[in-house]
Amino acid sequence: MNEKVFRDPVHNYITVNHPVIYDLINSKEFQRLRRVKQVSTTVFTFHGAEHSRFSHCLGVYEIARRVTEIFDAKFPEIWDSNENLLTMVAALLHDVGHGAYSHTFEKLFDTDHEAITQEIITSPDTEVNAILRRVSPDFPEKVASVINHTYHNKQVVQLISSQIDCDRMDYLLRDSYYSGARYGQFDLTRILRVIRPTADGIVFEYNGMHAVEDYIVSRFQMYMQVYFHPASRAMEVLLQNLLKRAKYLYHIDSHFFEKTSPNLIPFLANQASLADYLSLDDGVMNTYFQAWMAAEDDILADLASRFVNRKVFKSVTFEEESRKDLSHLVELVKSVGFDPDYYTGIHVNFDLPYDIYRPEKKEPRTEINMIQKDGSVVELSTISPIVKTLTGTIYGDRRFYFPKEMLSDDDLFAHTKKEFMSYISNDHFVSPN
Amino acid sequence: MNEKVFRDPVHNYITVNHPVIYDLINSKEFQRLRRVKQVSTTVFTFHGAEHSRFSHCLGVYEIARRVTEIFDAKFPEIWDSNENLLTMVAALLHDVGHGAYSHTFEKLFDTDHEAITQEIITSPDTEVNAILRRVSPDFPEKVASVINHTYHNKQVVQLISSQIDCDRMDYLLRDSYYSGARYGQFDLTRILRVIRPTADGIVFEYNGMHAVEDYIVSRFQMYMQVYFHPASRAMEVLLQNLLKRAKYLYHIDSHFFEKTSPNLIPFLANQASLADYLSLDDGVMNTYFQAWMAAEDDILADLASRFVNRKVFKSVTFEEESRKDLSHLVELVKSVGFDPDYYTGIHVNFDLPYDIYRPEKKEPRTEINMIQKDGSVVELSTISPIVKTLTGTIYGDRRFYFPKEMLSDDDLFAHTKKEFMSYISNDHFVSPN
Amino acid sequence: MNEKVFRDPVHNYITVNHPVIYDLINSKEFQRLRRVKQVSTTVFTFHGAEHSRFSHCLGVYEIARRVTEIFDAKFPEIWDSNENLLTMVAALLHDVGHGAYSHTFEKLFDTDHEAITQEIITSPDTEVNAILRRVSPDFPEKVASVINHTYHNKQVVQLISSQIDCDRMDYLLRDSYYSGARYGQFDLTRILRVIRPTADGIVFEYNGMHAVEDYIVSRFQMYMQVYFHPASRAMEVLLQNLLKRAKYLYHIDSHFFEKTSPNLIPFLANQASLADYLSLDDGVMNTYFQAWMAAEDDILADLASRFVNRKVFKSVTFEEESRKDLSHLVELVKSVGFDPDYYTGIHVNFDLPYDIYRPEKKEPRTEINMIQKDGSVVELSTISPIVKTLTGTIYGDRRFYFPKEMLSDDDLFAHTKKEFMSYISNDHFVSPN
Amino acid sequence: MNEKVFRDPVHNYITVNHPVIYDLINSKEFQRLRRVKQVSTTVFTFHGAEHSRFSHCLGVYEIARRVTEIFDAKFPEIWDSNENLLTMVAALLHDVGHGAYSHTFEKLFDTDHEAITQEIITSPDTEVNAILRRVSPDFPEKVASVINHTYHNKQVVQLISSQIDCDRMDYLLRDSYYSGARYGQFDLTRILRVIRPTADGIVFEYNGMHAVEDYIVSRFQMYMQVYFHPASRAMEVLLQNLLKRAKYLYHIDSHFFEKTSPNLIPFLANQASLADYLSLDDGVMNTYFQAWMAAEDDILADLASRFVNRKVFKSVTFEEESRKDLSHLVELVKSVGFDPDYYTGIHVNFDLPYDIYRPEKKEPRTEINMIQKDGSVVELSTISPIVKTLTGTIYGDRRFYFPKEMLSDDDLFAHTKKEFMSYISNDHFVSPN
Repeated sequence: MNEKVFRDPVHNYITVNHPVIYDLINSKEFQRLRRVKQVSTTVFTFHGAEHSRFSHCLGVYEIARRVTEIFDAKFPEIWDSNENLLTMVAALLHDVGHGAYSHTFEKLFDTDHEAITQEIITSPDTEVNAILRRVSPDFPEKVASVINHTYHNKQVVQLISSQIDCDRMDYLLRDSYYSGARYGQFDLTRILRVIRPTADGIVFEYNGMHAVEDYIVSRFQMYMQVYFHPASRAMEVLLQNLLKRAKYLYHIDSHFFEKTSPNLIPFLANQASLADYLSLDDGVMNTYFQAWMAAEDDILADLASRFVNRKVFKSVTFEEESRKDLSHLVELVKSVGFDPDYYTGIHVNFDLPYDIYRPEKKEPRTEINMIQKDGSVVELSTISPIVKTLTGTIYGDRRFYFPKEMLSDDDLFAHTKKEFMSYISNDHFVSPN
Repeated sequence: MNEKVFRDPVHNYITVNHPVIYDLINSKEFQRLRRVKQVSTTVFTFHGAEHSRFSHCLGVYEIARRVTEIFDAKFPEIWDSNENLLTMVAALLHDVGHGAYSHTFEKLFDTDHEAITQEIITSPDTEVNAILRRVSPDFPEKVASVINHTYHNKQVVQLISSQIDCDRMDYLLRDSYYSGARYGQFDLTRILRVIRPTADGIVFEYNGMHAVEDYIVSRFQMYMQVYFHPASRAMEVLLQNLLKRAKYLYHIDSHFFEKTSPNLIPFLANQASLADYLSLDDGVMNTYFQAWMAAEDDILADLASRFVNRKVFKSVTFEEESRKDLSHLVELVKSVGFDPDYYTGIHVNFDLPYDIYRPEKKEPRTEINMIQKDGSVVELSTISPIVKTLTGTIYGDRRFYFPKEMLSDDDLFAHTKKEFMSYISNDHFVSPN
Repeated sequence: MNEKVFRDPVHNYITVNHPVIYDLINSKEFQRLRRVKQVSTTVFTFHGAEHSRFSHCLGVYEIARRVTEIFDAKFPEIWDSNENLLTMVAALLHDVGHGAYSHTFEKLFDTDHEAITQEIITSPDTEVNAILRRVSPDFPEKVASVINHTYHNKQVVQLISSQIDCDRMDYLLRDSYYSGARYGQFDLTRILRVIRPTADGIVFEYNGMHAVEDYIVSRFQMYMQVYFHPASRAMEVLLQNLLKRAKYLYHIDSHFFEKTSPNLIPFLANQASLADYLSLDDGVMNTYFQAWMAAEDDILADLASRFVNRKVFKSVTFEEESRKDLSHLVELVKSVGFDPDYYTGIHVNFDLPYDIYRPEKKEPRTEINMIQKDGSVVELSTISPIVKTLTGTIYGDRRFYFPKEMLSDDDLFAHTKKEFMSYISNDHFVSPN
Repeated sequence: MNEKVFRDPVHNYITVNHPVIYDLINSKEFQRLRRVKQVSTTVFTFHGAEHSRFSHCLGVYEIARRVTEIFDAKFPEIWDSNENLLTMVAALLHDVGHGAYSHTFEKLFDTDHEAITQEIITSPDTEVNAILRRVSPDFPEKVASVINHTYHNKQVVQLISSQIDCDRMDYLLRDSYYSGARYGQFDLTRILRVIRPTADGIVFEYNGMHAVEDYIVSRFQMYMQVYFHPASRAMEVLLQNLLKRAKYLYHIDSHFFEKTSPNLIPFLANQASLADYLSLDDGVMNTYFQAWMAAEDDILADLASRFVNRKVFKSVTFEEESRKDLSHLVELVKSVGFDPDYYTGIHVNFDLPYDIYRPEKKEPRTEINMIQKDGSVVELSTISPIVKTLTGTIYGDRRFYFPKEMLSDDDLFAHTKKEFMSYISNDHFVSPN
């Protein structure tokens, strides 16, 4: 086929040389990703981060394509070029099952975007599957096995999913570019220069250590600065409470939801199919929330309005050992008239920036290895003190969310609110004892 | 108030020092802009350009804020600092009336986003209006008058709307940044260094000529390369035909639309209010189109599906004098079974990159003047040969759109399609005579 | 050989795969380019533009390398891969004969950097030549013939030297990057996507027209804004006058120059060899100028000091028809005590941004052609109105330079200086009649 | 005065509003900095890093100017605007005493660029001093006291010299921009948003922690990746040996040096004045080295030629405990005919990325403090685990340098060289026991 290109602000050009890739991009399941934002509620804090999963998936594909091109040219004896298409397809489709506000949605409706990704790939009902079957009857299963880490060739698996994979590399660069928070920038070109296949996976040349280290630090900083931003998590808590209220009300008045939010019914009724899932996207969900703003139920209407119009909850951090004392705050929120089930929330965010391989763990991580001139390998954290610090330790915080109204003491409830505020110092919850 | 900042990938930081600005940003009418894409169908060609009018409006505000800050510091005797807030507010709100797929929507439903912008500002029913009235009772009208060019102070008017205004400067930089098509980049910092108020408007220092010239060329190139891209216009033609079909069907079967697309009814029924307009956004419209894919009407269902899944029409350019001969193509499209009312379209896109002031015209343009050391001014095109070329001349093309199916001659209709293709050379329509 | 890379801020990495290239870079004639600035006196205006011809030559090579890689992959039937090395070598060495302050130096000492480039390549005394002869005995001559445009394969010649060649593409990007004047940025990646070899040269795909247009405009703007900057030309005039004075004095007192500036003697004595030429660089020349600051001759000492310490002359533009009237200004400069032979100067700078092929000209230009889908070509200016404007027309200005002292009227000569200033309006010379 | 601007690729524009600053920039001592490279021998590895100390000093000034502007606007009650000029002048002049290849030069000739900086400022013989005295008679002393840390106002001192000062911020950004090694990029704008004066120094707002952390990591990475690069240090060792040889020979044959390198004589003779020092720059030194290539002394001529033509020594890392065993290598170098005094060298490079205040140390560091909402401060490493890792620990390596010839075993000395190589594994020295 004639080479096709997509202009991309992150990778400049995304190049497509294979008709299977081109057709997958044009499939309806993949086009749907245009209607799902990559960073969900983060866009409420970083207004620039309006990019979709469509852009991200193209980017992951492009990185995978470049890697296979490099492996073909530089390591023909250890990299099997027959894996090129599989690698690129898996990269392109690794997130095809993501839906609207996936994270929160999954918690409330017990869906799983990874399982759905595999279903889209293997179900005979999808356009994606039909395209993949053109390659070979078992190709859909092979793609799915790469994504669920069971494929025999660990080189391919690690390119798609490991502590330094095409997915993470694209989302750091992309979320950074779009949000304007530059922390996520790292030297992709250098990493592509030092990446190498080995018999049982992927390694990096020793002299590329600082580029890999920088990538780990970039990822850490994006988590701390962008993904864990308190305001975005406030919107997540709000969304969670909103959907919880909807679930509760559905059992009382299903008619309202049938009228205002038809595609959500299968989920409220707990009997959703793949097609039902694919019928939802950010726009559909937001359309429903806008309709809910006119609900008779005050809580549903108010929460919907807060979400649609971005009225964020406020928050304080707290220590695990003070968790039980949050009941004081909850009581105070309640005493000024807010139902704490829907107007407060706890949001705990921790990330393990990097870890070595720990076979005793349920899902042991593939560690990052650096290869020396004589062929021996050393694990990254043994040569980078910075990475060592980030190894095996989780970073993040716990936050208690509540209505902003609790912080203005100019009304009837001034006394209560003053008490509320007395528990807060430097945005941190100070336990009464 | 405490200074607030928004991280922005184009301007780095957007700074808010005035509570009126902060409250306007948080108003529901302004938050709605998060749900309206800045470049409408262009995102179907440049997938990265997923930014909203919200981001753009913040950007226009930020440029205006910087200009007023500079004018305050450098030209206190000729710039009235009392105009600062008015300028910033007008910049922020200049596009607040934009809706989903505005361009196409306006053609079909006879709305006007500029009129709606003014209505949002002056109607006592909006949050925006209530915030503006806090400044002074006549402030909303003042803001509206800046936007409709009738405000007495031409400095302010020209900053918001002229051939080199804050609006255009932001959208060039932003659309360029997000699309990845670098043509729109120009030297904003230098332009801010040479911009100056005069008694009756805005001028630029003579030695900044090349920066202004570069801005004009950037704008020209963005139109030619990005805004007029044939594939985006294909989506616009498709959308137009889709909405045309919906209007037609509504008079036959209103029930279907009441069920699938309630917020569109007032427009289909031709009796829409401001609130109706504000209830629409990209997500709502797309939700409706997705529902229409299941319509009984084959044309509506097919066009909706083509739009949702991005199946673009193909096109050829044509000369005005060959327009009448397009009937040959239309006939051929019809003869293979497509209703040409809905499966073909003409899209004419021309832009006048720059013009001098021509008082005889209906809407004469404010020309760009450069001020010399001795205070005399010269009009830009008299000193820039490149701008001279772009002055008073429209650039663009005319395209005839048709289904992609017309270009594959491997079916029953091979003969017809071959005839169709015989009219095309280098993507241009060759008139049969 | 193992691939070697050089980190480069403009092209990210410069990749070397061929030992001949690597050895050429390490030759002493090529390393010498580290000591010669790329933009000569421009750095006195744009302080950031401190890069050397070494960096530029590596950049030209890198662009050439990418082009040959693309031609190999995409056009094997029309591009002969045996030309790869020749193309890359010619790109690398095209400027190897440049010396310190080449432009001015050549005028004063009648040298010619292009002739010297060829001499370095073909003389058996250079390291460069020895390396080239390893390829084949006639390889040095082949390289030289590419550089002097006589090589039979016009594809190679045009890549190295034409209106859109690797040389120009690198210097625009590089001078722009280092100076901070962004005008020189254009879309190199896109140009590399649309460049194609044909039977008799190089063309560009039709749909890349705007990228090529943008390159032409970028080049035009860099000339107008950076290369023709009045302050840089002031330093050139100063340098010219300084060297003129040295030549004059050498015939009176050669001893002073033998002591202070040994490597310049062969030039002052008009009997320089290639080795003499190669012994000069920016540092050597500046060392001499610093020594001249202590000369007994007041004019030499003063001009040297002005140059070393960057005391720029001031200037006015003038029209060709007023040239004769400049004598008025010269007289006034003289009457306050400056020898006008050394304290005034005329600097005329014009550039022809683009031209079509004009066989009647002495050195007709190779026009830029765009190839259409059906294989027919059209010349660039026929489809780009902007390029049309820049075609066959020279742009620039004429300036008369004089000591800054003429503009301060607070001394004994106040009356004379006031008269001097009366001839100037908006930095332009106003002829007395 | 009229605002003057310098186009700068790192800070976009450098703005000068005060005549003292403008005149200092135009002084001959400051213009001299154009002829001294910022990164000395690093440019032999990162060819793009050709920028001078002139550019860097302008950049440090610009950051200081922005800080004072911000402090004036935001903290008028705690920042004394009378300190603005002093701060900007100290920033501009902090490196004015740097000379050619300072580091190496100082070691060999016992000069001290910091002492010379102060001498230039306070000596009545300099243009710089004359300009400063225009402000007030004691202004030169005040400027010098800021630079030597004795000035009473610690706010000013810390802006010029501390673990996060204007100097470091500019050199990281600038060396990164010019070298193309992106590691040095950090978010200057954000740091300028969170920097604050306190009663006794400078602090940063707590919520800017990650920006400061990122700056510390960037600095660490620039040291590891760029400043400590083995090839640059090879050139430093070479230069050191070259100058050592010159010193040795001067006492035998002073005439040769008087003829070839007059400005170096005072240093060889150990009686240099400030004027002597200022007469040296990179160009002068390189001119001398080029002259030395024709010396009769083989070692001087060869080392000069290696330096001028960039023939780098090779190296191995070694552990402190193996240092004594390097004698084996030295012997082998000697046995193939190289004088080890001039053809080998040890280069130890360690940096302490960050430290807390340790009053027991000779030169205790000013720690970086973050201020919380309630006004209390916390030291950076207590809240950033990454910074904690870099606190109080030195990073770097020890290298043994030797001629590249030791690594090619294809000659008479093959046996010796094989033995030499047997001590090396993964570029590391393996001690024989």
